[in-house]
Amino acid sequence: MSTTLFTHIGELVTNDPTADDLLGAIPDAALVVEGGRVAWVGRAVDAAAADEVVDLGGRAVLPGFVDSHSHLVFAGDRAPEFAARMAGEAYAAGGIRTTVAATRAASDEQLTSHVARLVAEMRRQGTTTVEIKSGYGLSTRDEARSLAVARQFTEETTFLGAHVVPAGPDGAPGDPAAYVDLVTGPMLEAAAPYARWIDVFCERGAFDEDQARTVLAAGAAHGLRGRLHANQLGPGPGVRLACELGLAAVDHCTYLDDADVDALRDAGTVATLLPGVEFSTKQPYPDARRLLDAGVRVAIASDCNPGSCFTSSLPFCIALAVREMGMTPAEAVHAATVGGARALDRDDVGALVVGSRADLLVLDAPSHVHLAYRPGVPLVAGVWVGGRPL
Amino acid sequence: MSTTLFTHIGELVTNDPTADDLLGAIPDAALVVEGGRVAWVGRAVDAAAADEVVDLGGRAVLPGFVDSHSHLVFAGDRAPEFAARMAGEAYAAGGIRTTVAATRAASDEQLTSHVARLVAEMRRQGTTTVEIKSGYGLSTRDEARSLAVARQFTEETTFLGAHVVPAGPDGAPGDPAAYVDLVTGPMLEAAAPYARWIDVFCERGAFDEDQARTVLAAGAAHGLRGRLHANQLGPGPGVRLACELGLAAVDHCTYLDDADVDALRDAGTVATLLPGVEFSTKQPYPDARRLLDAGVRVAIASDCNPGSCFTSSLPFCIALAVREMGMTPAEAVHAATVGGARALDRDDVGALVVGSRADLLVLDAPSHVHLAYRPGVPLVAGVWVGGRPL
Ligand SMILES: [Zn+2]
Ligand SMILES: [Zn+2]
Repeated sequence: MSTTLFTHIGELVTNDPTADDLLGAIPDAALVVEGGRVAWVGRAVDAAAADEVVDLGGRAVLPGFVDSHSHLVFAGDRAPEFAARMAGEAYAAGGIRTTVAATRAASDEQLTSHVARLVAEMRRQGTTTVEIKSGYGLSTRDEARSLAVARQFTEETTFLGAHVVPAGPDGAPGDPAAYVDLVTGPMLEAAAPYARWIDVFCERGAFDEDQARTVLAAGAAHGLRGRLHANQLGPGPGVRLACELGLAAVDHCTYLDDADVDALRDAGTVATLLPGVEFSTKQPYPDARRLLDAGVRVAIASDCNPGSCFTSSLPFCIALAVREMGMTPAEAVHAATVGGARALDRDDVGALVVGSRADLLVLDAPSHVHLAYRPGVPLVAGVWVGGRPL
Repeated sequence: MSTTLFTHIGELVTNDPTADDLLGAIPDAALVVEGGRVAWVGRAVDAAAADEVVDLGGRAVLPGFVDSHSHLVFAGDRAPEFAARMAGEAYAAGGIRTTVAATRAASDEQLTSHVARLVAEMRRQGTTTVEIKSGYGLSTRDEARSLAVARQFTEETTFLGAHVVPAGPDGAPGDPAAYVDLVTGPMLEAAAPYARWIDVFCERGAFDEDQARTVLAAGAAHGLRGRLHANQLGPGPGVRLACELGLAAVDHCTYLDDADVDALRDAGTVATLLPGVEFSTKQPYPDARRLLDAGVRVAIASDCNPGSCFTSSLPFCIALAVREMGMTPAEAVHAATVGGARALDRDDVGALVVGSRADLLVLDAPSHVHLAYRPGVPLVAGVWVGGRPL
């Protein structure tokens, strides 16, 4: 099998858990790829010859970002709603319904080309693994086809029929109990073949604890693993429910009491923070420092969606995490790589150790610190997925 | 002369001052370039034929950004200082001396290639006019060569010998009075041929009001127009001095009293806001809303420099202006285009009306709102300078 040597790497972030530093960073490093996997990492001076050589001229190399939370299957945008919010209106989840109408009206081809464009945009910014949720269909047909579209781009698909209770055909408020029956019945039957995960928006105004339990249990019976949106807009039972059920991740985690933090630490459930949402809704940021100091596992993801956060940029989310959530640049990079991998219960991505999938990005900068030090600058100069250049 | 028609523009931001809306935005627009200038703008259906056609498929077109404040001539970076600051250390201007030592040690070729790289990075992000300051040489030789390097890239060069008082050869604190004599004497003589502007860092710990007057007057005697750094770290006399002298712009403007705001409005001096600095130093943002509501002219610029703000991205600064300074997306785009042009006393750039220089950018989005709605995403899909593609 042919080998590729990446050399003159100014800083190689390996996320090797046995290293002394959080990032397992190696200066003046090299990395060998064979068969789409990392075959060797070390100092450049110690590297053996290879069939092909990529000289990185002192640039930093990181594991590709793992974006464990996105909502890419939709149509339309909500730029006017965004502008109104910036002018002082509060964020309300009801705007979701605008996107639901546009998504239902879009053809499969339109949805597919829209997701393709966003996935390509993410890749150019260094995201090599992405989770994609449904949740703007909210009907059996539209949730199933949303997931079928998503599945063309990733294995990490999530059924989020329980995003919000849709309005009835007459525009009147939907019936939550009847909708949960639909989600856990015919909709789940149709969606499950295309999904790995099931998710619930467990928040005042969306689904309560009992409904979340019901949906997650039904998903589990169909082989879907659970994850939750919780504690975004206020305190609530979602985080503790996620921990009780041993879910891989619970996402948002802005409003936490001490018992929530203890539960996260004890369960090992990843707290996925989505600071782009707080940027775009002018809400308070989650306290990452508190979580890290308590020993909680933390991921950073984009939550890319047309309503509360239309960024696809993990570099931007890393810069925000450092500016607004008390994380060091190293902690933020860790959370956006191996943190995301843990949130998806993956150990083949998020790190660059022997055996890892050769998903890597090259920064036009000498170290990972520049992702926070140079906010907004498109620093990702090259991306390889499974050892192949974009 | 050959003509180029840009058509199927989803939204054309003209900044036409005679329009009803701030941006003079035209939907479904077209624009004709001839001889590097805008020859016609209007609705696409009304456009005449041209020698060449660029079909923009519904994308938005904006005037190229005018970045009226940057410090690109330096060597080295200060990533460790940045990381320490994010971990809680306060920003102190003394870090400038680190960059001064590296800049003095760098060759002209090193400085030139470093500036070339940053200017190229800016252009890719839509900046088509950039002001570049000296201020990391702080000796006659090094200020003059810094400006000679900058002049290779822009007409908008600014002599900032009065950035900070350099330490003496023994490392002891420099003598401010003696340094002002140097700046206004031999250093100014050497720098003036390469500069259009003269600037002073008028702040506690740097230069006081009397020193700023002295430096600006000496510059004026050499044909250099004045601008100021002022009221960044605390209240001070700089803003009122700028207004009294009728300067084109005074930059930072974070700590203002009502008299400062009134003076800005009455003088027509542009208040240039640099929100990337507050992002990267964790300081309070200037209150753009207050300035706009008072009728003050506002610009947004990057302040790109290795110490307090190493972003080169005006899209990022626009997103921050909307999130953190109370500006609407339209106001932020206006401030980063025609605002910057006014801050440089230029009327040939910052707008796309008949006669404007054909500096324009294409967004991979249907409207300017997406610059704030999609923070961190590299949305600039094409840039033309003087009618030529990058
Ligand atoms: Zn979400
Ligand atoms: Zn400055």
